[in-house]
This record gives sequence, structure tokens and C-alpha cells, in this order.
Amino acid sequence: MKKEKLSEILKKVAAGQMSPEDAEKELESASVADLGFARLDMDRELRTGYPEAVFCQGKTDGQIAEIVALLAEKNGNVIATRATKENFEAVRAKVGDARYLEDARLILVERNPLEKAEKTVAVVSAGTADIPVAEEAACVAEMMGNRVERFYDVGVAGIHRLLSCIEDIRKAGAVIVVAGMEGALASVVGGLVERPVIAVPTSVGYGANLGGLSALLSMLNSCANGVGIVNIDNGFGAGYLAAQINRSDF
Amino acid sequence: MKKEKLSEILKKVAAGQMSPEDAEKELESASVADLGFARLDMDRELRTGYPEAVFCQGKTDGQIAEIVALLAEKNGNVIATRATKENFEAVRAKVGDARYLEDARLILVERNPLEKAEKTVAVVSAGTADIPVAEEAACVAEMMGNRVERFYDVGVAGIHRLLSCIEDIRKAGAVIVVAGMEGALASVVGGLVERPVIAVPTSVGYGANLGGLSALLSMLNSCANGVGIVNIDNGFGAGYLAAQINRSDF
Amino acid sequence: MKKEKLSEILKKVAAGQMSPEDAEKELESASVADLGFARLDMDRELRTGYPEAVFCQGKTDGQIAEIVALLAEKNGNVIATRATKENFEAVRAKVGDARYLEDARLILVERNPLEKAEKTVAVVSAGTADIPVAEEAACVAEMMGNRVERFYDVGVAGIHRLLSCIEDIRKAGAVIVVAGMEGALASVVGGLVERPVIAVPTSVGYGANLGGLSALLSMLNSCANGVGIVNIDNGFGAGYLAAQINRSDF
Amino acid sequence: MKKEKLSEILKKVAAGQMSPEDAEKELESASVADLGFARLDMDRELRTGYPEAVFCQGKTDGQIAEIVALLAEKNGNVIATRATKENFEAVRAKVGDARYLEDARLILVERNPLEKAEKTVAVVSAGTADIPVAEEAACVAEMMGNRVERFYDVGVAGIHRLLSCIEDIRKAGAVIVVAGMEGALASVVGGLVERPVIAVPTSVGYGANLGGLSALLSMLNSCANGVGIVNIDNGFGAGYLAAQINRSDF
Amino acid sequence: MKKEKLSEILKKVAAGQMSPEDAEKELESASVADLGFARLDMDRELRTGYPEAVFCQGKTDGQIAEIVALLAEKNGNVIATRATKENFEAVRAKVGDARYLEDARLILVERNPLEKAEKTVAVVSAGTADIPVAEEAACVAEMMGNRVERFYDVGVAGIHRLLSCIEDIRKAGAVIVVAGMEGALASVVGGLVERPVIAVPTSVGYGANLGGLSALLSMLNSCANGVGIVNIDNGFGAGYLAAQINRSDF
Amino acid sequence: MKKEKLSEILKKVAAGQMSPEDAEKELESASVADLGFARLDMDRELRTGYPEAVFCQGKTDGQIAEIVALLAEKNGNVIATRATKENFEAVRAKVGDARYLEDARLILVERNPLEKAEKTVAVVSAGTADIPVAEEAACVAEMMGNRVERFYDVGVAGIHRLLSCIEDIRKAGAVIVVAGMEGALASVVGGLVERPVIAVPTSVGYGANLGGLSALLSMLNSCANGVGIVNIDNGFGAGYLAAQINRSDF
Amino acid sequence: MKKEKLSEILKKVAAGQMSPEDAEKELESASVADLGFARLDMDRELRTGYPEAVFCQGKTDGQIAEIVALLAEKNGNVIATRATKENFEAVRAKVGDARYLEDARLILVERNPLEKAEKTVAVVSAGTADIPVAEEAACVAEMMGNRVERFYDVGVAGIHRLLSCIEDIRKAGAVIVVAGMEGALASVVGGLVERPVIAVPTSVGYGANLGGLSALLSMLNSCANGVGIVNIDNGFGAGYLAAQINRSDF
Amino acid sequence: MKKEKLSEILKKVAAGQMSPEDAEKELESASVADLGFARLDMDRELRTGYPEAVFCQGKTDGQIAEIVALLAEKNGNVIATRATKENFEAVRAKVGDARYLEDARLILVERNPLEKAEKTVAVVSAGTADIPVAEEAACVAEMMGNRVERFYDVGVAGIHRLLSCIEDIRKAGAVIVVAGMEGALASVVGGLVERPVIAVPTSVGYGANLGGLSALLSMLNSCANGVGIVNIDNGFGAGYLAAQINRSDF
Repeated sequence: MKKEKLSEILKKVAAGQMSPEDAEKELESASVADLGFARLDMDRELRTGYPEAVFCQGKTDGQIAEIVALLAEKNGNVIATRATKENFEAVRAKVGDARYLEDARLILVERNPLEKAEKTVAVVSAGTADIPVAEEAACVAEMMGNRVERFYDVGVAGIHRLLSCIEDIRKAGAVIVVAGMEGALASVVGGLVERPVIAVPTSVGYGANLGGLSALLSMLNSCANGVGIVNIDNGFGAGYLAAQINRSDF
Repeated sequence: MKKEKLSEILKKVAAGQMSPEDAEKELESASVADLGFARLDMDRELRTGYPEAVFCQGKTDGQIAEIVALLAEKNGNVIATRATKENFEAVRAKVGDARYLEDARLILVERNPLEKAEKTVAVVSAGTADIPVAEEAACVAEMMGNRVERFYDVGVAGIHRLLSCIEDIRKAGAVIVVAGMEGALASVVGGLVERPVIAVPTSVGYGANLGGLSALLSMLNSCANGVGIVNIDNGFGAGYLAAQINRSDF
Repeated sequence: MKKEKLSEILKKVAAGQMSPEDAEKELESASVADLGFARLDMDRELRTGYPEAVFCQGKTDGQIAEIVALLAEKNGNVIATRATKENFEAVRAKVGDARYLEDARLILVERNPLEKAEKTVAVVSAGTADIPVAEEAACVAEMMGNRVERFYDVGVAGIHRLLSCIEDIRKAGAVIVVAGMEGALASVVGGLVERPVIAVPTSVGYGANLGGLSALLSMLNSCANGVGIVNIDNGFGAGYLAAQINRSDF
Repeated sequence: MKKEKLSEILKKVAAGQMSPEDAEKELESASVADLGFARLDMDRELRTGYPEAVFCQGKTDGQIAEIVALLAEKNGNVIATRATKENFEAVRAKVGDARYLEDARLILVERNPLEKAEKTVAVVSAGTADIPVAEEAACVAEMMGNRVERFYDVGVAGIHRLLSCIEDIRKAGAVIVVAGMEGALASVVGGLVERPVIAVPTSVGYGANLGGLSALLSMLNSCANGVGIVNIDNGFGAGYLAAQINRSDF
Repeated sequence: MKKEKLSEILKKVAAGQMSPEDAEKELESASVADLGFARLDMDRELRTGYPEAVFCQGKTDGQIAEIVALLAEKNGNVIATRATKENFEAVRAKVGDARYLEDARLILVERNPLEKAEKTVAVVSAGTADIPVAEEAACVAEMMGNRVERFYDVGVAGIHRLLSCIEDIRKAGAVIVVAGMEGALASVVGGLVERPVIAVPTSVGYGANLGGLSALLSMLNSCANGVGIVNIDNGFGAGYLAAQINRSDF
Repeated sequence: MKKEKLSEILKKVAAGQMSPEDAEKELESASVADLGFARLDMDRELRTGYPEAVFCQGKTDGQIAEIVALLAEKNGNVIATRATKENFEAVRAKVGDARYLEDARLILVERNPLEKAEKTVAVVSAGTADIPVAEEAACVAEMMGNRVERFYDVGVAGIHRLLSCIEDIRKAGAVIVVAGMEGALASVVGGLVERPVIAVPTSVGYGANLGGLSALLSMLNSCANGVGIVNIDNGFGAGYLAAQINRSDF
Repeated sequence: MKKEKLSEILKKVAAGQMSPEDAEKELESASVADLGFARLDMDRELRTGYPEAVFCQGKTDGQIAEIVALLAEKNGNVIATRATKENFEAVRAKVGDARYLEDARLILVERNPLEKAEKTVAVVSAGTADIPVAEEAACVAEMMGNRVERFYDVGVAGIHRLLSCIEDIRKAGAVIVVAGMEGALASVVGGLVERPVIAVPTSVGYGANLGGLSALLSMLNSCANGVGIVNIDNGFGAGYLAAQINRSDF
Repeated sequence: MKKEKLSEILKKVAAGQMSPEDAEKELESASVADLGFARLDMDRELRTGYPEAVFCQGKTDGQIAEIVALLAEKNGNVIATRATKENFEAVRAKVGDARYLEDARLILVERNPLEKAEKTVAVVSAGTADIPVAEEAACVAEMMGNRVERFYDVGVAGIHRLLSCIEDIRKAGAVIVVAGMEGALASVVGGLVERPVIAVPTSVGYGANLGGLSALLSMLNSCANGVGIVNIDNGFGAGYLAAQINRSDF
């Protein structure tokens, strides 16, 4: 709860406009919708300017549909991540204007598109197999009011592919780098751009990639400055963070 | 075997009421029913006051049914954990009054409900996907004679959800915290309540959560005092331990 | 902050006995002493009935001395853990009645000894090398108002040593098991007692013990019911949790 | 190749009974049957007295059938491990007297049963779910000329089950202990018997058992003397080693 | 090399103002000073607006002194990280105005202080032992033209300490969270602020903290949105990234 | 891009034969075909003399078919690795002369077979289950202009099998060793041959083989000199590297 | 306690020669000497025929000296492992005839040398640096009544060194293989001998040897039959187990 | 032993020029000098053309000196790796012309310098702190008859440093890449050169570099073709392998 709200409540009590008991209740339950299986933060969008996000994995179709419907009704914009096609079918039955991006595993409801930030977010990815995670990042950043430029399949094994587009990457206000295997792309890009780099390790690879740990460790130990890492395959987190960085107005 | 029983047997021998040979046999085989594939402790309930529990994973339907039937006949109350629907069908064929809790993967036989303890056990969980493990814990605590209060989906990313119900959590005699991902909820709750906290890491998450190890390590390294940890997804263990704590009469 | 305090403040505001501004400040700063390098919770003892604890590792001698002195003055009872002899010298210069337990690496100030709980806490340890951690647990439990019974060097390789004292262990209200190497003692004790068992893995061992991970994993996977685990070598945590369990009056 | 054979060949050459060229060839190719995909050691049985074993995992049905058929014809006795039912069907089509033990995943051909050793091999297992691995160990030991006594479901959580049969276990010439979860049984048995103990960790368990690593580490760090460990779920290896130990005549 | 420079060189060649051979050499060696043991990027400051940084660990005193002296002469501002007191003595002999921050292990030369950004960077840390890493982050952010506000010892075990200063934290343009042990602070802060959070796990703790991996994994799996992670104890990287974020003018 | 090309472009500009703008474009985009989801390096074959390789895992059937078709048309020779049968069907619809090696999971297009190197590449493997990886290595080396000699199922448990063919192995210009389980074969071969050994750990095994990590670690710690390791199951990489070594003419 | 003793006690009670109370006490405390910090099993030697062993690591000089003195007086033969020179000085002050083997870190007291077994124990080691662990194994086996033959520095990188002495190794009743780095020696020896092999991984190596884990995993995954593993650097355990195997009379 | 030697011995026996007994002995002991603590392969140099190498770590000063002296006398050229200054003092006392390279931790005796190969070996390293390992590799390659070109401090964070010297690197017959932290340099170089690349991960870094595992995993998962990896910090192995590759005459 925002401090201003706390001040306001206390002032009302002091002015006799609110009883202490009511104030206490208000302080405790404000802005949470309790569905039994979920307590929804109904005014995060209000607070942050960003759509509320729903993590689908581990929830039932019914739970997801109910949550998305409630948030869509209240806030207009919703992002549901790691969604299966089945999840989407359930949502669409309740929320007719929901869209599904299969590659990115995203369900999106976008009734009040945000105004776009001035600078772009660049999404750079190493290989074709990294595209689903890159798309998750790109679409989330777009939903959060950013124009996104995509630079795919520019892994370091053929570095001239990256160098030939680096000037365009440098123009972005925030750069997302998506790479599996050894994740070296994050360090190379980190050394070539001046704006913040968000690195997303992916689970692409086999054997000693340990489900993405090789790329994760590589990125955490990057010799380049100014690189922040998110969880393996966490395109959503990268898109969200890049949006926050790119929109200093928020 | 209880010491009193040992004393008793020895006294009988001294009094000539039992031959040394019989005493020896008694000492060795007392209270174990040997099914070939399992040696059942037939009087744990007698000894501990709690229902005997059966770990279903890795046992065949037939084995589970035979074990549950025998324990139900002898003790009245039985808990079977990590049970599939198939396991349950096999059990129900032999034990008509067995119930199945699908979410919690529990088979329960409860012929002699235990008297409830005075204080409650609080079960607090971080996200909707953690509910199955939370339910396993809650139902086990209930079977063991406790009233349970559930506080679900109060993860730390929206801490006002937790703070708004913390006073109710504080009233419990023992608190179970169920959380996946980074498992931070255990530390926050541990810092806010005075009674013992049992923390259950779950495998909810992906990538660097390493199947639940991230939450497990987080909880083991909790900066809060008075937190005891159980295995990943081990709702049963948490429910059992919380029951032991909450019932100081046992 | 306790809910009652919140109610009280709000009531004062409503009654015009406190200005909203003062209430806000009170809500924010109550009970925290800010030393620059540390923000001390000055009324945890008041709140929990237990002495505040200071984790010495990573703090300078000067910082530790200042913190302990402040807490001792305010609360009377203080526990400082993982303390070196040098830490202690610095503390004693400021707090004359501080004691140092070298084995357990504890600095204790105990001006208002707590009344003892009715039941004992049992501290059971596997080998001689586990004694320092066992002592840390035992002394913490004692400071927190418990009588402690020690059962040392009863590891499972010579199980008759354990069996010969198991009846005494069973009388305790809470049992702490301290073991390194394979940590099997926790499972054996867990199977033999009815009260809660707190298991402390230690780093005793070498090679594939991985600094205590072998014992930790062993305890987490215990086939016995009702075992809660704390971090490797965390005698303090076990003592604290056992005290909470044994004193249902708190 | 046995040293005696080397001596013999050299002597023949010296005596002019064999040309140097033939000797060289003999030295190189003796006793190996090359199937293209496999080079079979055709006289291991001759050399070791034990049946040759075939590791089925990763081989095709056809390869397994061909190998088993060839060895059966040459040696009479064959053990094929980690065999699926499909593997067995393919074998039986070629080797009519092959048997399949589903639990233990073994295909056995036993045309010249070995004479039994004087002492028994004891196979002790912790839980019902450990039985398949225990059976693999037991059946292999039997094939290798040992009488086997089984002690199943005697895990340490109910230690009286183990103590009631420990005297019988002590009579064995070698003891195999099979346990998953925390694997504590190996240490307890190791402390109670004087003969060598072969410990087999199993993958039974979940969460922090890490696919059997918890039991493996536990056994490697056993505080008991005289315990040798084999790979997780390696019932075959344990049975083989126990047979070698129990048959000092080999 | 910047694209503009490439264009410029090519234009000079086209205009006959530069020979192709010279152009080639220029393209290859521009802006790198080769000391034998190091190739210094002499115009990163020019390019990025930020001081060049030197990673001291693994370099000799002499190498560090030579590198810092050269960069100081060329650029005016230099940051040397993970510096020992011995490193500093060697540097000071060559660079009289170098300063040493012992806690933060930083050597700083600051001849042309950067203008400060409008918003602050908040540095929030969990415990007293995390202060050295927090100071490294704070001082680096300051050198890079930011005003820094410090919020130390506000770990989640006493969450009212954090809540009482959260409004001030929310005013920052970028937030750095420094925490060891279970690292839960990152998730709680991440859920409470709207601006980007850079999380720095520290190696503070013991046992199952695995040298900081517990906090690292915790932060990577944070349930809060908008959290970017850097390497364990990498205060420099966090300060650098926060500065990049806070200064959208760069 | 090759340096000679750079020189050439610059000379053209100096001679007025190319405008600076065209030169810039040329430098940036040369030799990359952008398919949207992939940027193909169209003249690697020209540059390296070797066929371009496509990593199929994580790409869709359609993507693979399009890439292979384009490369086949341009270069004549293509290798696609980790290809499923479905991948192949899609490719064959577009590239009639593509072949599929099921064991090795390779799709090959070979329109301009390379001339064979003088020396052979030896591929040595430990067990029958390692053959698929060995075949991947062998076929890649063949495509790259080498005659390959195969020595399969010569694992160290029956070392006479290896010794009987070691002289033939020694004749190769490069030796590939493929082994799972404990991977000991690499050390033994490494000690017996004088030419470079490329070791490929495989995931063959179970339990503590950790998906191939046991063999990988074994090979990395080999006590033999002159052994280079590739990723687990990476037959392609080994074949490629062995070809580079064996063909000093490239 | 031996079953015969149990029978005997019960018979005495039945015969009125012992009171039930005395029997109970006898059953509980028999054969344990309680030093406060240690409970010594005073008749293991009697029971097992082997000297009692003391693990010195983690015990103080005074504790070690007291334990060794007591066991030496009672049993005559004592083995103290992982002993430092300081430990030994403390022991020698109390036990004049104690010997110290610096390499093997053993303190030995041998007043009643055991009769030697008929067959030898072979100790085979890979490199010079493995000798300390090999010596620990060898000396323990000797103390336990075995003649030991040493075959040192016969690692697989120069396999002719091993082959030239393999016939002598084959004559042993039990074979100990000690190897660090990749530990391949265990598999090669395991494939060449018919008697049981006890493999001891050592921590010799660096980097990816992970403190001995590489050799440990290698040995656990050995493709040879009949290999039992002990903990990293556990020469004592290997010597003890080999002695048990070689002395079938025990 | 070389096959030719075997043929020769057999022919002598056939010709009556050697008794079978002598032949047997010859076959067994040829070319090994047994020092008790070491069995030296006295004719590896003869066989391989390369100097014998001694791994110093874990050997005593005396052992090292004795081994180096013996090999120097017999072969003329010796390489001793991971040598401390103390090791060297002991060697110099016996071998006057031994040299010590402190950085590279090498002791070298070079009495018969090998003729140099035609092509060079390139040694490329990422940072100043990687130089000791790079020097180990370079000096070993030099001793083995190669001219070496060094390219140090060309890590990917400033990729123009690498690109400016890549043409010179491409001229080498074999390329060694030495890098710590995230090890990305190996992939970038691997993508830019056509000759074999040997990658050496170093332990340079901190935190999540896990003692070099991050660089190791990165290199194993390299997206570039034709990269072979050696153990962490294993400069010797890389130098040896590069020499074998560069000298196809061996």
C-alpha cells in the first residue's frame, strides 16, 4: 500500500471521518480480491502502470480463466505466461478478445494499449531455437508500451552477423540478449553497447548445458559491465525489466 | 519396543510365568506383521496416538491395498500418501470407507477421528500452484487431531496480502509455510510469528529452481529464527511435524 | 509490530490524543535503533519472550560490541553466535558480565534468567566431533528457559549406545539430533521417539560429505516422520526451534 | 589373457611348435567374438567361473538376442540386466530356455547351475519400493552359486524390525543392503555385522533425494566400517561383488 | 569502434586523404594501448561516458599500478575493483591522488567528477555483513554520476525495518538490493517498488549457502517482476548497471 | 570476413572503384542470407572447405527444410545433426538427394564429395550403446574428407579387446574415443597412441553417471596427455575437430 | 550385543540368578565406557576380532589421547586415523608404544599382532601422489592380520606398467585400487582380476576433479563387475573392508 | 610396448636366441624404471618424440628431484608442471641446467631442443589474470618443437582488440584459447579460425564461476565447431595437444 494512502486514512481517523475499526480493516484488506485459490492484487496496474501478469504453470485451466477474466474486467490489460493451448481455450471461453501467441506461450488481453516509449527495446538472440523465449520477451515489452526491434540468429560463432547489425542495436534504450548453449552472446553485446543489457539464458542445448545452467553461469560471470541476468527461459522477466528501464517515465 | 514392555517381560521370566525361549521370541517379533513385501508396525498408532502412514510411490496397487486394509482393520485410521487414482481404486475395492483427496494425493481412512487440539495449525502458501502440497500438509494435520486454518496465495511479491492476515496466522500453535520458486515466504513469516514455523519448499518454478532446490536452500539459509525444514514437496512431513508440535499432550 | 499496538495508535488518533503525523512516524520507526551499520529490533524480547540474538560472522569486533552492549542494556539477555575469542574480548570490554563458551562459539549475557519449562530438551549427538554444534544448540535452549539433557557420541555404528539411553530421550518435550557424516542418527531417533525431532547436519567428515551436504540430504530424505531440519552446523537454530516447541506457553 | 597361456605360447614357439606369426595373432585375437556391434569375451566364464553378463540398456532387441544366444551356446549360463519385456521376447525367440524376472529386470539362462557356496548371502532392504533392486542383487548372487536369504522392509524408521532379524543376517558370508531415501540402513547394518557389507543406494524417494544421490552420499559417508558402495540402483553389481566375497574358492 | 569512425575512415580513403594501408592499420589498432600483459581500451570513457574499470584480482601490484596510471593520465577517472591494500600502495606510488575504500575494496581516481543524475540510486542491504558489497555498489554508482541513498540492515526477518523506509526507496530511479543467506529481500523489495531492481547475492552465510549460491538461486527464482541479477558479491556490476539505468541520458 | 577481402574493398575505394557507402554496406552484410528465423553464413564452405552444419534440435521441420535446401543449393554439401525422422521427411520433400542415418541422427547432402586425406581417422568406442554417437562422429569425419576406421565395443573392462587392435588405431592421424559410464577408455587410449585424441563422453549409463557427467569429468581429468574433450554425446563436434586435425592441408 | 549374551541373561533371570532390574541395566549399559565426550565400545575387538579405530579429525589432542589410552589398555590393539603429528605427541605421552606413520596419518598401537591370513591383500595405486592414501589402506589391512603387496604408480596412462605386474595382483584374496584424477585404474584392474576390488578415489588432481568427485563418479560407474567403492581418500575404510574379505575366517 | 618389439622378441625365441623365460620377463618389465614411489616410463621420448612430463603436485621435493634427474640423464628433455619454487630448488641441486618459469610454474630441462615445426601455435588469452595458464601452454608447446605467438588480454568485452589481431591468429596451425570467467572467447575465436582450437578454462573469477566451472561449461557448450576442451587451468595439456596437432610429422 502506498504511503500516501496510509497518511490519508490516518487523517480521516483524526478528523473523525473514519472509525479506528474501519481504518484497521481498510489497512488490511485493501485491493486484494480473494478467489480462495488466489488473492489477486487488483490495483497493481493502477500502481505500476503495467498490466498484471499471471503465471499459468501449475494452475488449472479453470483457475487461469477465472483469474484472467477478473483482471481483464478490472484492468483491461492482462499477460498470462507459460500458457498451454488448453489454458488458452479455457480463457477464450470467458474472455473473447484474448489472443494466444503459441511460440511465446503467452495469452494477452490488451484493451487499453499503452502509449509507446520514445526509444526502442532491442531483442537479440543467438540461434533459431532461442526464438520462443525471445518472442516472449519481445511481446511482453510491447504490451508494456515499447516498440521492439528483433535481431535473431546472430550467435557469436559467426560474429560478422552480429557486427553487421550492432549499430542498430546500439540505438535501443535497453537491450535483451537471449542465448542458450554457452551464452557468450551476452558478453559480446555487453561489450559493444552502452545501454543496460538484460541477459536471458535458455535451456537450448544438450549434455553439459545442464538444462540451461551453462548459459546462466556464463552470463553471471560475464566479463562485460552492465549486464543483469534473469532466470533460465524467463523471457517474461526480461521483457518486463527492459520495459521498466526503457520507460524512465514510469 | 517400549521400556515398560521390556521390564514386564523380564519380570514374567523371573516369576517363571514365561520361559526364556518365549521371552526371546517375544522380544524379537513383537508387533510386526510380515506380508513378505512389507513388515508392518502394527502398534505405532497405539504407541504414538497417530495413524500409521503408507508411502505409496514405488509400491504396486495390490501391495498398497493389502497394507491399507490390514492397518485399517487393526488401527481404524490410515493415511496413504503420494497415491494415484489407480492406487485408490485398488484400495477402495478392499476398504469401502477410504476417501481420496486428488489434489493432495492422499488416501484417508478415518474410523476413529482424533479429538482436536485446542490451538490451530496455520497453513500458509505462496502461490496457487503450491496448493496441492499445502493441502497434503493441511489434511494430514487434520487427521492427526488439529483444526487447520488455510492462508493461500500470500507470496511476498505482494506482501500486503500476507500482512493483512498475519494476525490470524500468529494465533496458531504451529505454522506451516509452503512455497516454491525462491521460497522467501518462510523467512518473512518466520520473522513475524513467535510459534514454530515448518517450511516446505515446493518444486513449483522452472529453470534455476532446480526442481525445488532453490526454495529448499533459501529456507535452510533463512535469516529468521525458529524455522525447521522438510523435504521438497513433503506436505505430509510438515503436517505430521506441525501436529506433533501443536499437540503437546502427545 | 503487534496488531494491538496498531489498534492503540489508531484509537489515540481518533481520540485526538495523537496527531496523524506523529502516528505515522510512530508506525514507521517504533522499536528500531539505527546504529548506521545495524538496525536493532529493540523489543523482540518483549514481543517474543526470548533474548535477541546477534550473528557475529562478518561483523567487526567493534560492531558486535556496540550491538551487544545496547541489547544488554535494553533487554538484559543477549545471545551472540559464531563468536570468536577476539569478538568476545571486544564485548567484555563493554559488557563485564558477558560469558564466552569457546566450544559453542557463544557469547551470552543473562541478567534475567528465564523460568524453566516443565519438560526437558534432549540433545543427542553422533560423534565427539559433533559436540561443538551440539553445545551451541544446548546452551541456546538453556538460555531460552529449558533444562537440557545431553546424550553425546551415540552414533548408529554402535547402535546399542543409543538404545541404552533411548528411554531417557523419549521423556523430552523436544529432541535435537546433531550428526555429521551420513547423518543416519536423525532417522533412527525419529523412528524411536514420539515428540518432534529437530535435526542438525554438521560438516564433520571429509570427501564426499561435501562440507555437510551428505548429512543434510540424508536428514531431508529421512524415512522417519516428524523431523524438521536446520542448516548445516546451525546449532543456534535448532536450540531456538526446540525451545519454541518445548515451551507451548510462549 | 592368463599369464599361463602367455608362457605356454612362448614355449611352443621356442619348441618350434608354433610360428612367431601365429603366436602373435593368437596373442591378439584370442577369445574375442566380433559381432560388429559387439566384441564378446568368449571365455570369461572359463576364466572367472561366473556367467558373462550383458547390459541391455541402449542395445537393440536384435543385438541383445544375438549376444545372449551366442554366449548361451558357448557358456551355458548368461545374465542379461536392465532388460525390458521387449528385450526378453526377442531373446526367447532364439533361446527357448531363457527366463525373465520382471521385477528385477533380468533375463537368465542357466544350463549349468553352479554349486552353492557354504555360507549364504543376506539381502537386506529398507522399503517395499526397494525390492526390485534387491531382487536383482539376490537373483544375480543366486546365479553365481550362492544361497540367498532375503530381509525386506526393515528400514531404520522402525528399527525393531531390523533388530528382530539381525542374528540371522549376521550368519551370512556377505551382506547386501539396499536402501533409498536417506540410506541410513547401511550404517546401522554395518555397525551390527562383522562380515563385509555391500551397500546399494536406490533412486527411491523424491525431491532432495536427487535421483538417489542422497542415499549414495549417505552410504559413502557411513560412520560404520567395512562398507563398500556400488552405483545407484546397481543390484547386479552388488550381487556380483557379494558372490565374489562369499566364494573365497573362486 | 564506432560506426561513424568507420564511415569517416572510408571517406578519407575515397578522398585520397588516407592510403588503404593506413586505413587498415587504423581499423585494427585504434584505441588500444598494448602493455604486453594488457591491452587497454583507451577511449571507453570517451565512448561510454563512464570511467574505465580495472579488475585487480589475479593481477600483480606492478601491473595494476601501471594500468591505473595510464588510464588516469588519459581519462582522469578510474575505478579499480577487488583491490587489496598492497595493490593500493603500489598504485599510490604512481598516482598520488588515488583513494582507497577498504570496506569496498575499491581504488578510485576521480579527477573530473561526473555531473549527478536527477534521480537517486537506492542501495538496500539485508545485514551488517553485507555492507562491504553494498558499499562497492554504492561507491561505483557515485563515481558514475549518481547520488546514492543507503538503506542498510533491513533484512526480511524484521520486515518492519524495511517497511518503515520503503517510501524513500521508491523514490529512486534504480534500486540495488544486496543480500546473502536466503536473499529474500530482493523479492520483497521487488514487489514493493516500480523501478528496476538489481539484486546482488552475497556469500554471507555458512553451510548450505554454498558460498552464495543459495542467495543467487533465490534471486533468480524471484516471484517478483523486474529483478535483474548479477554475480555473487559483484557490487561493482550492480553499481554500474544501476547507473546505466538511472542515467537515461547516456 | 577475411582480411584480404577487407584490403581489397579498401583498395577499390581508394581507386574510386567503389563508393564509401557501398563499401560500408558490403562490409556489413556480406555473405549472410537472412531467413527471418535464421541468418545463414552462405560462404563458410568457401572459407573453410567444410560443409555448413545445421543443428536441428529446437528448430521446426519447416525451418530445417528451408535451411538445408538453401545451403544445398549454394554449397552442395550439408550436414544436419540431431535430426529426427520427421525432420528428414520435411527435408527430403525439398531436397531429393538428402540421406538419413537413423543411428547417427544425421541428414546428409553430399553433392561434391571432398577428396580424402591421406591418413585415416580412428573411431574407438567403449560399448555397443555408444555406437550411435560414434557413428555420428564417423560419418561427419567422412563427409569432411576422411577415411574412417571403426573400433567398436573395446571398453576397458576387457582390455585385451583394445590391445588386440591398438596397432591399427596408432596408424590414424587423429583418434576419436567415445565412451559412457566411467569413460576410462579415453585415458587408456590416450596413453597408447601418439596422435591427438578427441574424447566424447556419452550419456550411456544410469544413476551416478548423472546424464554423462561422470564420463565427462573422467575425460577432463585424464592422466594421459594430449586429450581434448567435447560435450556429452557430441559426436558431430568430435568428427569435425578430428577432421580439422587430420587434414593439415586445410 | 550378541544374541547369545541376550539368551544367557534371560536364562540367568529365569534361574533366579539375576534380578530383572539387574538384567535390564545389564542390557542397556553393557560394554560402553562413557568418557563424557565419547562412549567407547569396549568389546568391539572381542566381538569382531579387529582393533577398534578412532577417527581423530575434529577431536582435541586430549580427547584422542584419553580414548587411545583406554582402548590400548583394554584391547591391546588400536588404530587412530587422520591423526596429525600433534595428535600423536599427545598420545605418545600416555601410550609409550604408540607408533606414528606420517604419510598415512595413522597412530598405531599393536600389542597383540593378529595372525596373518593365508592370502595377501594387493594395494594398487595410480600415481605417486596417491601413495599416502594407499599407505593408509595398506597399514590398516596389515594391522588387521593381512600380508600386503604394494603396486604403486601403475596408472593407466602407461598401461604396460600395470600389465607387467598384473599376474602378481591376481594372486591376492582382495585388491584395493587407489586412484585420483579420472580413477580409470579401478575399471582396468576390475576387468583383469577375479577377486573383489575395493576402489578408493583420491582428491589428487585439480580443476574439474572437484576435490575427488571425478574419480569417485568414475569408479561408481565402472564398466567392470565386482567393484565396491569407499569415500574419497578413505584408505582406512578400504583397508578394513579388504581385510574382512580376505579373512573369511572372521 | 610397440608391436614391432613384440614381433622381434617372438622371432628371437623362435630362433632359439632367447629363452621363453627371458622373453616373458622382457615383455613385462621393459622400459620401466621402478623408484619405489614411481615407475618411470624411460622410453616415452624415444617412442613419442616428446619430453616426458612430471606432475609435481602431491609429490615431495625429493621425489621430484630424483625423477627429473633420472629422466634428464636418460632423455635430455624434461617438463615438470605445477612446480613450486621449493620443488625447483630441490631439482636444481641435482640438475644444474634446469630452468624455472615462475609464472607458468614449470621446471624445464632442455638439452636437445627439438626442431621447430613449420607453422606456429597461437596462444590467445582473455585477461591479464589468465596469463600464467597461457604461459604454461605456450612454454610447453615451445619445448615440444613449436614456435608460439602470444595474443594476450583480448577478451570479448572489447572485441575490437581481438578482431585487430585475428588475421595473425588465423595463420597458426593450432590455436589455444585461455579464458576464465564466462570463457566466451573460445566460441568467438572458434567461429573465426579454420584450424583446430584447444580451449583452456581458467579458475579466474569469483562467485558463480565455481572455481572455473562456468568457463568450462561455457566452452563445452560452445556453438562454434572444432573446439576441444581440457581441464580447468590445464595449460600443459593444451600445449601438449596443440603441439601434437601442429606437428603432423609426429
